[in-house]
Amino acid sequence: MTALHPLVEVAPDRRHAVAVDRSGWPAVWPDGVATPRTVDEVREVVAWAAATGTAVVARGAGSGLAAAAVGVPGAIVLDLSALQRFEIDADEQLARVEPGVITAVLDDAAASHGLMYAPDPGSVGISTVGGNIATNAGGLRGAKYGVTRDHVLAFDVVLADGTLVHVGRDTIKGVTGYDLVGLFTGSEGTLGIVVGATLRLLPRPVRVATAAAYFADIETAARAVTAITRSGARPAVLELLDGPTLGAVDALEGTALRARGEALLIAQTDGFGAFEELSVVADAVAPLATLVETETDAAASARLLLARRQALPALEALGRPLIEDIAVPRGRMADAVREIGRIADEEGVRIFVFGHAGDGNLHPIIVTERGEGVPAAAQRAADRIFALALELGGTITAEHGVGRLKREWAARELGPDVHALQQRLRAVFDPQGILNPGSSL
Amino acid sequence: MTALHPLVEVAPDRRHAVAVDRSGWPAVWPDGVATPRTVDEVREVVAWAAATGTAVVARGAGSGLAAAAVGVPGAIVLDLSALQRFEIDADEQLARVEPGVITAVLDDAAASHGLMYAPDPGSVGISTVGGNIATNAGGLRGAKYGVTRDHVLAFDVVLADGTLVHVGRDTIKGVTGYDLVGLFTGSEGTLGIVVGATLRLLPRPVRVATAAAYFADIETAARAVTAITRSGARPAVLELLDGPTLGAVDALEGTALRARGEALLIAQTDGFGAFEELSVVADAVAPLATLVETETDAAASARLLLARRQALPALEALGRPLIEDIAVPRGRMADAVREIGRIADEEGVRIFVFGHAGDGNLHPIIVTERGEGVPAAAQRAADRIFALALELGGTITAEHGVGRLKREWAARELGPDVHALQQRLRAVFDPQGILNPGSSL
Repeated sequence: MTALHPLVEVAPDRRHAVAVDRSGWPAVWPDGVATPRTVDEVREVVAWAAATGTAVVARGAGSGLAAAAVGVPGAIVLDLSALQRFEIDADEQLARVEPGVITAVLDDAAASHGLMYAPDPGSVGISTVGGNIATNAGGLRGAKYGVTRDHVLAFDVVLADGTLVHVGRDTIKGVTGYDLVGLFTGSEGTLGIVVGATLRLLPRPVRVATAAAYFADIETAARAVTAITRSGARPAVLELLDGPTLGAVDALEGTALRARGEALLIAQTDGFGAFEELSVVADAVAPLATLVETETDAAASARLLLARRQALPALEALGRPLIEDIAVPRGRMADAVREIGRIADEEGVRIFVFGHAGDGNLHPIIVTERGEGVPAAAQRAADRIFALALELGGTITAEHGVGRLKREWAARELGPDVHALQQRLRAVFDPQGILNPGSSL
Repeated sequence: MTALHPLVEVAPDRRHAVAVDRSGWPAVWPDGVATPRTVDEVREVVAWAAATGTAVVARGAGSGLAAAAVGVPGAIVLDLSALQRFEIDADEQLARVEPGVITAVLDDAAASHGLMYAPDPGSVGISTVGGNIATNAGGLRGAKYGVTRDHVLAFDVVLADGTLVHVGRDTIKGVTGYDLVGLFTGSEGTLGIVVGATLRLLPRPVRVATAAAYFADIETAARAVTAITRSGARPAVLELLDGPTLGAVDALEGTALRARGEALLIAQTDGFGAFEELSVVADAVAPLATLVETETDAAASARLLLARRQALPALEALGRPLIEDIAVPRGRMADAVREIGRIADEEGVRIFVFGHAGDGNLHPIIVTERGEGVPAAAQRAADRIFALALELGGTITAEHGVGRLKREWAARELGPDVHALQQRLRAVFDPQGILNPGSSL
């Protein structure tokens, strides 16, 4: 490695702090860490990296689940978490943000204007807007409001040679040129470094209403999802939890949810028609459910969502969770969950399933003993789950990303022609291959 | 030109039929026209074009407004209008369509399942889904439901060498690989030929409600748009018409709309809360309006929308309309309309303004005498309107596209760095430059 740029720190504690994310991928220390305070500093560091052929891994809060923003030997990590300025234009319903802004901080600020930043990944309280953009993060409200891609209008991007460009526009619509905003979203820092974003805000719903419906088995719960889809309702949140996950929540919280059924669906409607829409949801699931609870005040709604919010902490209490992230056509969810159960049995591992049922997005969680490394049986189970997703017409990652974790599987999902096309496209933006070389979308 | 492919017809009437669209761009006859009946025939023709270096212009119904799908000397036009198969999967809320399907035909079929294909460009009854994808078409419901981009999940694409690839996926979410679906959407046939699409369908709203509000002047109507935005309501449709347009509708329909005000806003709310949401809209605009009418049954709602539906026919009755398509930040709409009035006066041309106010998307219509060619004053006025859009922080095209019509202006809006990046990106997909060489996004 050539002489480091003055903004690059090499102290072990700094390098150690960016060596892992939350995916369980083994730690890899980068050679240095830069923490720019301004866009000009980002440009300086990237221009230096281009001149010296140094790899650059952009990183936000390190809350990623695909090892997309962790160190690579010889690389520097570009820690964007200090870029935290943002402003809200309430009349235009826009926010202009730097990438290091914590997503929940933005949403809370929007709320003070009666607005909402809709994407709400489970990590909303700790992840950054920049990280959400890099992975095209989804979230609970995705059933109605979509993913990060649906809420980004324009970016300032530092390209691989240090050039700063502005792509997209501050108007809601616009078709001049190719959709580079969409292309950068979800590109895991491989095409450029997003240093500023114009985000769309929406009116905060005037009210929400929530239903919790329990079912005798997961197949019936999956049929209830179809019944909701057919009902004409469009819940903002539609979450599914299987029996083992309910058992884990019971163990953590002292509740008795699993006594009510072997599967739980939580639906939340919002907006002016939230109460009527919830009754449509409740009517649709009632013939299939063992129990349906509905709530129309905010505190009680939050209580019904508790099981979902506590699902991951409950599994973390049992061991080390490997969080998978497949999506399948909604009608294949029951098949997916049944097959995942078979895989768990055959491989002798514990797998819990919850997820965003409105999107067909399941998070099978393989819980292993704590410690370094992924046991062979758990890895085999994960690979079989990916293969299952593709077999059912789905995807190996709905919202967490590819990173280092799913490189081989991504190539398999895309197929050789599309994968080759993507590599050529990547080379247009980064001919030297210095941007996040460990990630292969 | 080398020997033509057997599927390419050269009869003058066939070539003449594809020499123009609805933009007013002068007729340019291609050398031939292919009308494939199958995807394999598309591949055959494109592979032949690649082998012979023949330019290929993909075309749907020819309803475009940017001269993006018209002949180029030496080129063949690939007329995709015969590819009209489609199927609806009601449980998955998806449609699988060929590009020649008329958009309204798809939406009507979706309606029979209680579903909706949301994008509804003004041309919905005559334009094709493929054309909508090529231009990333918007429409009236865009205020709430967005544009074509927001409803496409996967494409089958014939690349410039005749290879068939599948991009995207049939699940609602998925982040494996770059967003090629977004990249192809709005790319005007310059990156590949979309021969199949998986589209997202939504529950058809259970009810709609409509308000028509008249104002003393356009500035007050624009302030009313801000008041609606601030109210917490999110109308599905929010259309603005200026006084001269109302006068033209009166002349065509025998109505007396202009007697009620010099500007009209039409707002439509939909869904379970439509009636309450409409009352929020009506309350927000009441202090500013000279008159507010509201309707909650479907037939009466349609009557209130009549002025908008008849705006273009009314202007066509007055001469030849040149349809412009800018977007500005919503808060700058009043400035835009005022400046457009000044431009009309200074250039001595007639300009009428209506548009999708919820998106800041204005359609200034320059009405000239019928006949060949655009008068110099009209062209000057159009150029000044584009410059105005950029000056106000907007775009030269919100939903119609760039085509041949706005090549120079697109380059100006994008700036040299982004324009160059786009050209390099285009070359990845089409190294020979045979795909729609006349269009320069």
